[in-house]
Amino acid sequence: MNVLIVFAHPEPQSLNGALLRSAVRQLEAAGHSVQVSDLYAMGFKATLDAEDFPPGDGPFDPSLASLEGLDSGEQHPQISAEQAKLDWADALILQFPLWWFSLPAILKGWVERVYAYGFAYGVGEHSDQHWGDRYGEGRMAGKRAMLLVTTGGWESHYSARGINGPIDDLLFPIHHGVLHYPGFDVLPPFLVHRTSRVDEARFAQIEAQLGERLASLFSAAPIPFRRQNGGDYAIPALELKPEHKPGAGGFGIHLAD
Amino acid sequence: MNVLIVFAHPEPQSLNGALLRSAVRQLEAAGHSVQVSDLYAMGFKATLDAEDFPPGDGPFDPSLASLEGLDSGEQHPQISAEQAKLDWADALILQFPLWWFSLPAILKGWVERVYAYGFAYGVGEHSDQHWGDRYGEGRMAGKRAMLLVTTGGWESHYSARGINGPIDDLLFPIHHGVLHYPGFDVLPPFLVHRTSRVDEARFAQIEAQLGERLASLFSAAPIPFRRQNGGDYAIPALELKPEHKPGAGGFGIHLAD
Repeated sequence: MNVLIVFAHPEPQSLNGALLRSAVRQLEAAGHSVQVSDLYAMGFKATLDAEDFPPGDGPFDPSLASLEGLDSGEQHPQISAEQAKLDWADALILQFPLWWFSLPAILKGWVERVYAYGFAYGVGEHSDQHWGDRYGEGRMAGKRAMLLVTTGGWESHYSARGINGPIDDLLFPIHHGVLHYPGFDVLPPFLVHRTSRVDEARFAQIEAQLGERLASLFSAAPIPFRRQNGGDYAIPALELKPEHKPGAGGFGIHLAD
Repeated sequence: MNVLIVFAHPEPQSLNGALLRSAVRQLEAAGHSVQVSDLYAMGFKATLDAEDFPPGDGPFDPSLASLEGLDSGEQHPQISAEQAKLDWADALILQFPLWWFSLPAILKGWVERVYAYGFAYGVGEHSDQHWGDRYGEGRMAGKRAMLLVTTGGWESHYSARGINGPIDDLLFPIHHGVLHYPGFDVLPPFLVHRTSRVDEARFAQIEAQLGERLASLFSAAPIPFRRQNGGDYAIPALELKPEHKPGAGGFGIHLAD
């Protein structure tokens, strides 16, 4: 199978760099084809702006410009190249250090630029039964995705009662809003906490655990996010219907009963 | 008082541009001094990388490099300038369109670069009673902060049972993790939903509501996030002690009882 790893760390001689090389080695040993988008090494442009597209007439509208760029092919070559890699991939791995509880800017910019209108959103019909091909449908349907995330903080700081907030909730905007949205099946994340305390012995453990996760990349059960157009949500309000998780709110209700 | 607005939209002739000009006008009319960091207009560098600092010897460590840059002053002039604006400000407003459920990359990069080690994190002693000056303490203590956020989606899509997730939960990593962390008192956000449907009449309404919020910028009650070192959390596990919100988990438990 084809695996795309999008990697967002500035230093190859880092824990993240070592994990990347290990992931590539283990995936290739299992017979997969791997492409790596090493965003820092590529000098990836982080900012979505008018320079991504041919000069236009009126004010710059990032959505419309990205739609026109996608249709005409007149978009920054980095955007076209990354879109082609996504179409090629059977699985996507986003690898990054958790900076300020979210994606590093260079990877957030990858999402903003590559996820063009007509490519990752604004796809499909909008009616009373169907509100676009999104949240479980879309161009990435049938593909799998997984986050590989490192944190400096301790695991307990990211636990259900930890001060940073539970890691599953911190990652929900990425799992649900960036990956489930255009159709990926999203696997539970692979997490490495307290990165300053990784010695050789712990690295060997982590590498073995990563190998197990990569070995089940195409067989493990994904996070059971609900499909937007599967009947669970009222359209167009897009609120979960009262018969599901009655009275409850929050991120957790978007997991299947 | 001194107000810093950090603005992250690429087009001045946009709803966000109009809201920015309105905010500046209303704040200045009330006697405040206002500085605007218009990140796109400034060509703000979005990516934290080795080019922000003098050449080093070993592998690039973003945290240590930022600490050394802060101490020596040898850091990218954009970083020094924004740090000086934060020190000057009595209140910070981050204004942005919600892109993929989070900060636009250019604003995320502002956080990563300006929030140096020793400036916004890694401050204060670490002991059994005190785990750094953070989450309610730190260099920004005594200052206020507020988000001004626009979304294309409907308000119901961001409600307690809305498919995108509740807006308060989507913004928690910013409110709590980016603003409360270095000590800001964080006000409830000012939100504008369904931006494609803002005509002149609705803009006049929004502008009036924004004026009311800006008029209470220095008097409104902040979100009552708990202080990390106030006794509610076990140190160093940093989990909420069992007597508070017993048995509960998630972002909501970090609000005072």
